[in-house]
Amino acid sequence: MEGDPTLRLRIFDLNCWAIRYLSKRRQERVQLIGDTLHREGFDLVLLQEVWSEQDYSDLKARLGSCYPFSHYFRSGVIGSGLCVFSRFPILDTLLYQYSLNGYPYMLQHGDWFCGKSVGLPLIGTGAGMGSQMLCPPCQLHAEYSREKDAYLPHRLVQAWELAQFIRHTSKAADVVLLGGDLNMHPEDVGIRLLRGWTGLRDAFAEATRFEGCEDGCTLIPNNCFTVKSELLPFPLGIRIDYILYKAVSRFTVKCEELKTTTGTAPGMDFPFSDHEAVMATLRIQRQDKAAGANLGTTEPALVDVVTEARAEVAVGLRAAQRQRYSSGRMAVLALLLLLLQAAAALGTLAGLAAGQPFPKLSFSLLAFLAIGVLLLATGLHLFHSIEVKMLQGTEEQLRMALRALQERP
Amino acid sequence: MEGDPTLRLRIFDLNCWAIRYLSKRRQERVQLIGDTLHREGFDLVLLQEVWSEQDYSDLKARLGSCYPFSHYFRSGVIGSGLCVFSRFPILDTLLYQYSLNGYPYMLQHGDWFCGKSVGLPLIGTGAGMGSQMLCPPCQLHAEYSREKDAYLPHRLVQAWELAQFIRHTSKAADVVLLGGDLNMHPEDVGIRLLRGWTGLRDAFAEATRFEGCEDGCTLIPNNCFTVKSELLPFPLGIRIDYILYKAVSRFTVKCEELKTTTGTAPGMDFPFSDHEAVMATLRIQRQDKAAGANLGTTEPALVDVVTEARAEVAVGLRAAQRQRYSSGRMAVLALLLLLLQAAAALGTLAGLAAGQPFPKLSFSLLAFLAIGVLLLATGLHLFHSIEVKMLQGTEEQLRMALRALQERP
Repeated sequence: MEGDPTLRLRIFDLNCWAIRYLSKRRQERVQLIGDTLHREGFDLVLLQEVWSEQDYSDLKARLGSCYPFSHYFRSGVIGSGLCVFSRFPILDTLLYQYSLNGYPYMLQHGDWFCGKSVGLPLIGTGAGMGSQMLCPPCQLHAEYSREKDAYLPHRLVQAWELAQFIRHTSKAADVVLLGGDLNMHPEDVGIRLLRGWTGLRDAFAEATRFEGCEDGCTLIPNNCFTVKSELLPFPLGIRIDYILYKAVSRFTVKCEELKTTTGTAPGMDFPFSDHEAVMATLRIQRQDKAAGANLGTTEPALVDVVTEARAEVAVGLRAAQRQRYSSGRMAVLALLLLLLQAAAALGTLAGLAAGQPFPKLSFSLLAFLAIGVLLLATGLHLFHSIEVKMLQGTEEQLRMALRALQERP
Repeated sequence: MEGDPTLRLRIFDLNCWAIRYLSKRRQERVQLIGDTLHREGFDLVLLQEVWSEQDYSDLKARLGSCYPFSHYFRSGVIGSGLCVFSRFPILDTLLYQYSLNGYPYMLQHGDWFCGKSVGLPLIGTGAGMGSQMLCPPCQLHAEYSREKDAYLPHRLVQAWELAQFIRHTSKAADVVLLGGDLNMHPEDVGIRLLRGWTGLRDAFAEATRFEGCEDGCTLIPNNCFTVKSELLPFPLGIRIDYILYKAVSRFTVKCEELKTTTGTAPGMDFPFSDHEAVMATLRIQRQDKAAGANLGTTEPALVDVVTEARAEVAVGLRAAQRQRYSSGRMAVLALLLLLLQAAAALGTLAGLAAGQPFPKLSFSLLAFLAIGVLLLATGLHLFHSIEVKMLQGTEEQLRMALRALQERP
């Protein structure tokens, strides 16, 4: 951006839903994504749920000529699923893993195994690399039930950590672009917290021109891969994939155009993914005087948002404390049973009891059961102890934020 | 610092070794630490290994009048052990947990349970909060054997993540102060990497005046709580606790004085901890022209350091891959055994085998054993898969850093 004061930046964001052996028509779709990206020549591509490194390598091989720079963020058992392709050099990267991410025993949801994170590529743009952009792709914990959302406190902790991470790292850049599947509706407390606390602006709300699904929805009943029953309460679909942005200093950012796909990939009869792709054209312009850092929401409104988030985290904290208590009690009971059995066995050995009081088989089965329960309950107790610690930590940080907001003149 | 261009800052750093039920004379020592801090009136106190929140609360109650601002960083099962007391307001905090931190099954070392992290308090100093300081207290994975240091790759990953974290967040501040037990000798590759990549300077090397243990050692045979046998190869002791600093912009920092305790607390016959306390007096001065960001080591030397670190991480990666493979093989074998037993049991039920081929007791014991091994080996396999992912990620980041260094004009 040195020299030329304006940069028009075209961004592509997609949750690719590329789970090996599980996602339908995965290979075909990944190839289609690669072809489209190659043809369209975006400046920056932020992808989520590319769970297999092989898919990333295939995309990289296909896109090497038009996106010379790329990065895959590794984390968790399976990976973070996040990757970025860029026409501009990636100067540096950093990965921040959220401290809470669901429960390891909820195998059917699987979020815990993914190591959900926010990746932080620092990208240099334009001649002489006059400006630097932070372009984190990110994904938050999925919402499996809107009515009884057991993961809301975890998602709020993630939204808060994401907001804090962006606040603390964004000074290293001139422009921050956040793209990803946030798994939150636009009016949810998590997204209001993230936007309010960081000052990030929503490309959909700010776009001069919009083309795509009604209300900007990115999970729609029209898409052949979505689960229709989950979308029953939302006949138009829901908007959970976002492109958010802000200028940090000396620059202004404006969203000229925002587009989404509408249930099929352009010119095809099937979609890229179960999510719609979001494509934005941003105009980044240098200005002479530095813009002051500001929050995204007026302060009284932000106080309300932080208070609401804190109340939700407190609800999660109480649930985690209950689970920690009951797993601890279970472990103690299993230990007592084991001790009792040991005492009975010793008694028999010492000849205190007449004859053989228990059949050997059920006696050992019971002992093994007790050991199993002890191990499992101890593991759960440790896990919920961590959960309690992290929820307490977040609650305290939110309290600090609230105090800082209220003390501001 | 608005108005007055110079700030003299007195910092106290200590690894408190305050483990409930395990550390000797803990309560007495915590009280002594509180009394000393109260009497001496430092500006900033960075403590590690305050494992019990009760100890933190006691310190907070004792120190509230002279250090009105404090924060305890929560993470892991037990906690991060990190806390900070400050005469200046703590404006914001962020916690970064290292992605690797030892092994959960190494119970005797226990690092895994601590959730080792770097805390990030942003502190505003002086009238009108003219400047902001990042003052992370931190602790890296312990070294249990210098000859056969199995944790070196983990500690290197942590040192790299710490360096990256500081690089990415330090632009939000004018001065960065890092205090803590880094568990590395001054010439170790991890500390050279951290200092080289961030530009942090070592208060011991830079101090105009020094007073304390020879060579600035902080783990010395003279201290009645240290394990003498571990220090046999180092008759003077070792230096593993540091205060590092740098000015980010518009400021200069100079270390006027550095002190360590020398085996006993001042005026007492026993020490604060098994580590010596490190106390620095820094002079922070505003200057008119902004200082450019620079690396701490000349670039050719830094290339060597990054190359060396990358080689060590690669060694760790191969070891982790071997462990992932052998735990996976063990899980498969246990599964095969279970399947075999199931087939045999079904065969017996179907009357294929004549009579009872196995005694019931040993048959079920074997089945339970196989289930136990299967669960354990699967858990290990998952754990080592994460380890492999994170080591690969760090290796790739180091490769990127190397390329960036080599491409620089």
